[in-house]
Amino acid sequence: MPVHTTLTQRLGLSHPIVQAPMAGGADTADLVAAVGEAGGIGFIGAAYLSPEQIAERARTIRARTARPFGINLFAPLPAPDAPDAGTMDAAVARIARYHADLGLPAPGTPALGADGFAAQLAAALDCGASAFSFTFGIPPADALAAIKARGMLLMGTATSVEEAVALERAGMDAVIAQGAEAGGHRGSFATGPGEVDFAAGLVGTMALVPQVADAVDLPVLASGGIMDGRGIAAALALGAAGVQMGTAFLTCAEAGIPEAHKRAILDARETQTRVTRAFSGRPARGIVNRVMDDIADGDALPFPLQNTLTRPMRTAAAQHGRAEFLSLWAGQGVRLARRQTAAELMARLAGETDAAVRRLTAKN
Amino acid sequence: MPVHTTLTQRLGLSHPIVQAPMAGGADTADLVAAVGEAGGIGFIGAAYLSPEQIAERARTIRARTARPFGINLFAPLPAPDAPDAGTMDAAVARIARYHADLGLPAPGTPALGADGFAAQLAAALDCGASAFSFTFGIPPADALAAIKARGMLLMGTATSVEEAVALERAGMDAVIAQGAEAGGHRGSFATGPGEVDFAAGLVGTMALVPQVADAVDLPVLASGGIMDGRGIAAALALGAAGVQMGTAFLTCAEAGIPEAHKRAILDARETQTRVTRAFSGRPARGIVNRVMDDIADGDALPFPLQNTLTRPMRTAAAQHGRAEFLSLWAGQGVRLARRQTAAELMARLAGETDAAVRRLTAKN
Repeated sequence: MPVHTTLTQRLGLSHPIVQAPMAGGADTADLVAAVGEAGGIGFIGAAYLSPEQIAERARTIRARTARPFGINLFAPLPAPDAPDAGTMDAAVARIARYHADLGLPAPGTPALGADGFAAQLAAALDCGASAFSFTFGIPPADALAAIKARGMLLMGTATSVEEAVALERAGMDAVIAQGAEAGGHRGSFATGPGEVDFAAGLVGTMALVPQVADAVDLPVLASGGIMDGRGIAAALALGAAGVQMGTAFLTCAEAGIPEAHKRAILDARETQTRVTRAFSGRPARGIVNRVMDDIADGDALPFPLQNTLTRPMRTAAAQHGRAEFLSLWAGQGVRLARRQTAAELMARLAGETDAAVRRLTAKN
Repeated sequence: MPVHTTLTQRLGLSHPIVQAPMAGGADTADLVAAVGEAGGIGFIGAAYLSPEQIAERARTIRARTARPFGINLFAPLPAPDAPDAGTMDAAVARIARYHADLGLPAPGTPALGADGFAAQLAAALDCGASAFSFTFGIPPADALAAIKARGMLLMGTATSVEEAVALERAGMDAVIAQGAEAGGHRGSFATGPGEVDFAAGLVGTMALVPQVADAVDLPVLASGGIMDGRGIAAALALGAAGVQMGTAFLTCAEAGIPEAHKRAILDARETQTRVTRAFSGRPARGIVNRVMDDIADGDALPFPLQNTLTRPMRTAAAQHGRAEFLSLWAGQGVRLARRQTAAELMARLAGETDAAVRRLTAKN
C-alpha cells in the first residue's frame, strides 16, 4: 500500500496513529511528546494560542523528544455578520445566569478580535513541526505554499467526500476523514456559505472512510469512534492509511483538561453525547450537560462570538470542577476510555491492533 | 472465535452476511433465495405481510433453494395515544396536497388496525425459517419461547449498549448492532416509553460495535454503512461475528423496490440522507426528498398511523415513478451501491473481504 507508506515512512512513525489536535489545552507538551516517543505523532491544537504560546509549546515538546510532532490551526473563516442587538442581548443573558451561579461578574458583550491567523501561521511555520493540519476548511493558497515549502506534511479535515475532493484539489498531502462519531468540533466546511448543516455533515466513520478513499488519491486518516486497536484495524480495513484519535487521549494522565471533564468521559455512555453549537457557535460533539440542555443551537451566537462569550464561564467551571458548565468534548466511543498514561495507551493500541489483525486472519 | 462459529456454523453459512429484512417489498423471494444460494442468509421483512403472504413468500423461497432463510417481525408496540382532532386533521391535510398532485382522492383519517402480531407470529413459526429477528424491541416471552422451541436462531436489534444488554437478558441468541449510518427504520426502543430520542440512538457503527461486543456474551452482527468487503473486514475487526447489510441489496436486480428508488440510491451522495419520522411516524433514514423537506418530525402522526396515512401516496408514487413521494430508505454508504444481481454482489463481497484482510495482514 503506497498510501500507508507515504504517511508513516515520511513521518518516521512506528504506528499509524495521530493524536488529534485538541485546541483548548488538552494537548499538552507532555502528551504530544509521549505520543511521539511511543511511535505515533502528537499534534498541537494551536487555534487559540498566541504566536508566543505556539513557540513555547513547541520548544517544550522539543526539549522532551526528538521525534516529529504536528501543529493544527483553524482555516480562517469569514467574519460572521454582526448579530442584532436583541439576539446579542438574549445570548448574553443566557450566559449571565451561569455567571451568577459561578460567582462571576456579569458577562460582557463579545466582540470579534483581530484576525490572528497570519501571526499564528508564522509562528507555526517556525516551530519545528513536521506536519500541519487544518480544520474548518482550506486556508489561502499562499499559506499552503509556505507550509509545503518548509517540507511539512499538509493535511486537511473532511466530513464528506465533497470536502475531501476539495482538499485534494487544494494540494493537501493527506485527508483526515472525520466521521460523525468524533468528539469536539466538526470540521465541516462545504455545506453552505454561512451555517453548517449538522445532519448532512454527520456521516459515520464506517460509511465515510471507504467513500473518501475511493474519491481521492491521498492517504486517508480515519477519525471518529476509534478508541482501541479493534478500531485501528477496522479503519485500515476500510482503506485508511492511519487513524486520528482524540477522546482516547483525553483521559490520559498527560491530557490538560479539567479533572471534571475526564470524570465525565469515564462515566459517560455512548448515547450521552450530542452535536451542539452552545459553547462555540460551531457544531461540536460533547457529553450532554446543563448548558447543552439549556441553549438551543439557534440561540447560540455565530463562531467565534459564542466561544468568546462562554470562555469565562468555562474557565471558572474548570477551576471549580463544575462539569455542567464545561464543554465536555467527547466522541461516541466513551465506554472504551481508560485512565492511563499516553505511553500505556500507545502500547495497548499497538498490541490490540496486532491481535485484531491476527483474529481476522484466523477467521478468514 | 466461538462467536463466529455460532452464527455461521449453526446456520451453515459460507459467508457471515445477513441480507437485512426490508419490510415493504424489497426482500423478494428471489432476493432471499439468491443470498442463501450464495452462502449468506436472506431475511423476509414480514412486518407488513399477512399470515397468508408470509406462508406464500416462504413457500416461494423454499421452491428456489434448500438453503436457510430468516424472518423478521416488529416487536409489538403499545398502541399510540390517539392524536387530537386538530393534529390529525393537520397531518391528513399535509398528505392531501400530495394526493392532489398524484391524482388520488383525498386521504382518509388513518385508524389503528387490529393487532396482527399473534397471527403473523404463528405463520412465521410455521414458515420454515431458520432464524427469527426482531426490530423495535423485545416481544413477549411466550413468543420468544415458541421461537426457541422450534430451534430457530433468535436475534434482536440494538442501537445502544443498553438495548443490547436487554436483548441478551431476554434470551436472544445474537444481537444486531445497528449503527447510525443504517438505512430504513431505527431499531431503537430503550429511550423512553413513548418517543424515541433520535440523537441518543444515533451511535455510529465504528463506536457502537466494539462497545456492544464488550457488553454482551452474544455474537454481534454489525450493520450500518457496510457496503463492501472493506466494511465486512472492518466489522469483523471491531469484534462482530458478521454483518447485516440492507442498502447494498436494494440496488440488486432482485430487490422489489420501485425503479425510482433504485435510481435515487445510485445518484445519491453520502450527505443526502437523514433520519425522518415523516413517512411512518418512527425514525428511519432515507434520501431527503420533498416529503422529508416538507413534513417536520413533530408534525408526523405516531407509528403506525403515519405509515397508514402515507401508504396510498407511496403506492401511487411507486406506480408513477415519483421519487419525491417515496420513502427512499437508504444508508450513508450510497456511493458504494451498484446495479448487479445478488449473486454478483455476494461473490464480490467475498472476494473484497478476502482482499481487505490480506492487505491488512501485509500492512501489519
